[in-house]
Amino acid sequence: MRQSQLFTKTRKEAPSDEVSKNAQLLIRAGYVHKEMAGVYAFLPLGLRVLNKTIGIIREEMNAIGGQELSLTALQDPEVWKKSGRWSDEAIDVWFKTHLKSGSELGLGTTHEEPLTDLMRNHIASYKDLPKYVYQFQTKFRNELRAKSGIMRSREFIMKDLYSFSRSEEEFRKFYEACAEAYIKIFDRVGLGAKTYRTFASGGSFSKFSDEFQTVCEAGEDTIYIHEGRKLAVNKEVYNDEALSELGLRKEDLREEKAIEVGNIFPLGTRFSDALGLTYKNEAGEAVPVVMGSYGIGPARLMGTVVESLADDKGIVWPQAIAPFAVHLVQLGDDAEVQKEAQEMYREMTGEGIEVLWDDRDARAGEKFADSDLIGIPLRVVVSQKSLAEGKFECVERHSGRTVHHTLSELIGQLTSHKSSL
Amino acid sequence: MRQSQLFTKTRKEAPSDEVSKNAQLLIRAGYVHKEMAGVYAFLPLGLRVLNKTIGIIREEMNAIGGQELSLTALQDPEVWKKSGRWSDEAIDVWFKTHLKSGSELGLGTTHEEPLTDLMRNHIASYKDLPKYVYQFQTKFRNELRAKSGIMRSREFIMKDLYSFSRSEEEFRKFYEACAEAYIKIFDRVGLGAKTYRTFASGGSFSKFSDEFQTVCEAGEDTIYIHEGRKLAVNKEVYNDEALSELGLRKEDLREEKAIEVGNIFPLGTRFSDALGLTYKNEAGEAVPVVMGSYGIGPARLMGTVVESLADDKGIVWPQAIAPFAVHLVQLGDDAEVQKEAQEMYREMTGEGIEVLWDDRDARAGEKFADSDLIGIPLRVVVSQKSLAEGKFECVERHSGRTVHHTLSELIGQLTSHKSSL
Repeated sequence: MRQSQLFTKTRKEAPSDEVSKNAQLLIRAGYVHKEMAGVYAFLPLGLRVLNKTIGIIREEMNAIGGQELSLTALQDPEVWKKSGRWSDEAIDVWFKTHLKSGSELGLGTTHEEPLTDLMRNHIASYKDLPKYVYQFQTKFRNELRAKSGIMRSREFIMKDLYSFSRSEEEFRKFYEACAEAYIKIFDRVGLGAKTYRTFASGGSFSKFSDEFQTVCEAGEDTIYIHEGRKLAVNKEVYNDEALSELGLRKEDLREEKAIEVGNIFPLGTRFSDALGLTYKNEAGEAVPVVMGSYGIGPARLMGTVVESLADDKGIVWPQAIAPFAVHLVQLGDDAEVQKEAQEMYREMTGEGIEVLWDDRDARAGEKFADSDLIGIPLRVVVSQKSLAEGKFECVERHSGRTVHHTLSELIGQLTSHKSSL
Repeated sequence: MRQSQLFTKTRKEAPSDEVSKNAQLLIRAGYVHKEMAGVYAFLPLGLRVLNKTIGIIREEMNAIGGQELSLTALQDPEVWKKSGRWSDEAIDVWFKTHLKSGSELGLGTTHEEPLTDLMRNHIASYKDLPKYVYQFQTKFRNELRAKSGIMRSREFIMKDLYSFSRSEEEFRKFYEACAEAYIKIFDRVGLGAKTYRTFASGGSFSKFSDEFQTVCEAGEDTIYIHEGRKLAVNKEVYNDEALSELGLRKEDLREEKAIEVGNIFPLGTRFSDALGLTYKNEAGEAVPVVMGSYGIGPARLMGTVVESLADDKGIVWPQAIAPFAVHLVQLGDDAEVQKEAQEMYREMTGEGIEVLWDDRDARAGEKFADSDLIGIPLRVVVSQKSLAEGKFECVERHSGRTVHHTLSELIGQLTSHKSSL
């Protein structure tokens, strides 16, 4: 895309009330717009990153048998009263609203209740199980404070998967398959090395749940990492009893701040009991379905990437979720440079390479500063100098490493699916 | 996809409170789930149709220079007070809610105000214009009644594009380009022949707006069609003065019920004046931006297709938005038939043909009835009989026409991008 056509502009300063690093950078670079505290719109560059992140999660959820659907934000109190979660005491982040008739409605913070109720139409026999159902859907959470940018907002897209199994054993098998899929996702978006499967509280229906925590100074959680076993324990269950049960010794653990980038949660029969979701087993007896829930927030993942990988010049995107693969920076607008830039843009996009072409009438310094701020993995400079040399300066954003390539070398590198030069 | 794996089941009856034909059929076939009156979840089959519809609209919006973003549902009253549309008198379908702090918020019914405000960050000079910005985003409308199924719901995805132009002339040029793009969209989803560009009220800032109305008994609107000129007049502006202005005579017009499947709307400087969106012209003077808005509801389009094309056996999808291209119906489960069906499924999906394979343990009559209800364009039957003959019975859903093809003939037909056999 031609940068002169992109409607967003970079800005020198984020809004003065924005305290999080991720939102400051994303706003300055034109990825998101702050509508109000904890509420962010996604601009074209931001939507590209968000959709790539969603695409990766979707692939991994489909690979483990997930079926995608889309539930609603508006919530009928009826099903929530059955599970005892309609009150603000049970869920302290409800937004509530009213129909014209005066009836109260909620805005979905999560979807166990409506989905469990829906599945009653489709699950009758053991032959109908197991089933895995997920969505990318907007959640609304009335957070008291919202100071973490797009990592904890009041309105955000969540990938939530729910598993429906015949037995605890069948459930556990999927639970582990989903844990593996999650690890693949965090690897693919560039957070694998810093992310740990973490024992956390299981709430009222299970001893432990599993979180996936990415080590980061901006994290709201504290975890204790066992590097050798590549796992961690959340502070909330960091006590002698739990450690002994997990076979961990305090002296082997390292304390870190971390961001919860995903969680998987045994639900047992908590919701199937409350809402009457049963199946007939082979003996013809009605048995409650065993459930689990599995969440990842794509925007939180995106915010975590910004927090973890950015440097003092701006954002640094990993290849897999970058808005474009190449930032083609044109210096000068004489006819020759113009023509060469156009030709490069045409050839690269023809090869399926996503290019943001900075064709703006602006100074070199401004273009380079914007390019660093926006954080596309590879910057390629076209100028009189590059024309004279027949090679183009290519700078890797994450390492700063510079190499010089002809156009065909460059295309060869980019289409061989290597993430670096 | 294997139908035995699909978690949804068809049902004989829609919920007794569902009065619309589109929702009755879509619920029975497992496309949507009724959460409550006017609120529908999209199940896997329904989400496939919705996403294909969205994909077509997105292509046509990108083709006319649209840039996609995603605004928020939660609305700060501030910008709506500036335009005078925060009150329930101005917008009678507001849902309102509250932050923990007690501040009132709205749920977006439309997005002129927040987008106009946002664009103030990005539009300064005549060089920044024109710009065309759109989204697929969830709207909330507190409709008093909701009796039209997915054609008018309280929560729905809307494609809304907004144009920002330097002058009335520049605006009109885009307005016509968008009208042409809309006609392509309605053609592509199979509604072209029944859809008319329709003069409607322009509200307070323009004499006329343009609606796109699809002739259908279930429509809420009444229009007067001039077949020769392929246009219509909405009843709301059907008066002598308007007709004379449009050069139309009553005797040439035919009255029909119709569904509004899209609208394009001149906004003038109504919102740029209210919210202070100006640009500097070449003389350095601050001039208000000329705006337009352009809406299509993908779910309404999907509901209109169901209403318009369904027959007494069920839904009839046009190829372009069908959840699958082929319904492979396997009769019997002896090893030979099983193996052949599997082979056909493998070969067709290998060619990029989307296949729903009915591998369920069910009677032929039940499978055919479900297949008619679900409405996939082509049914291919695999049975002992087809094995003996070496040809497969292929039935077009829309015409009922039956032909017999070998597998390679069938694949040849389907990959030559012809919509019919």
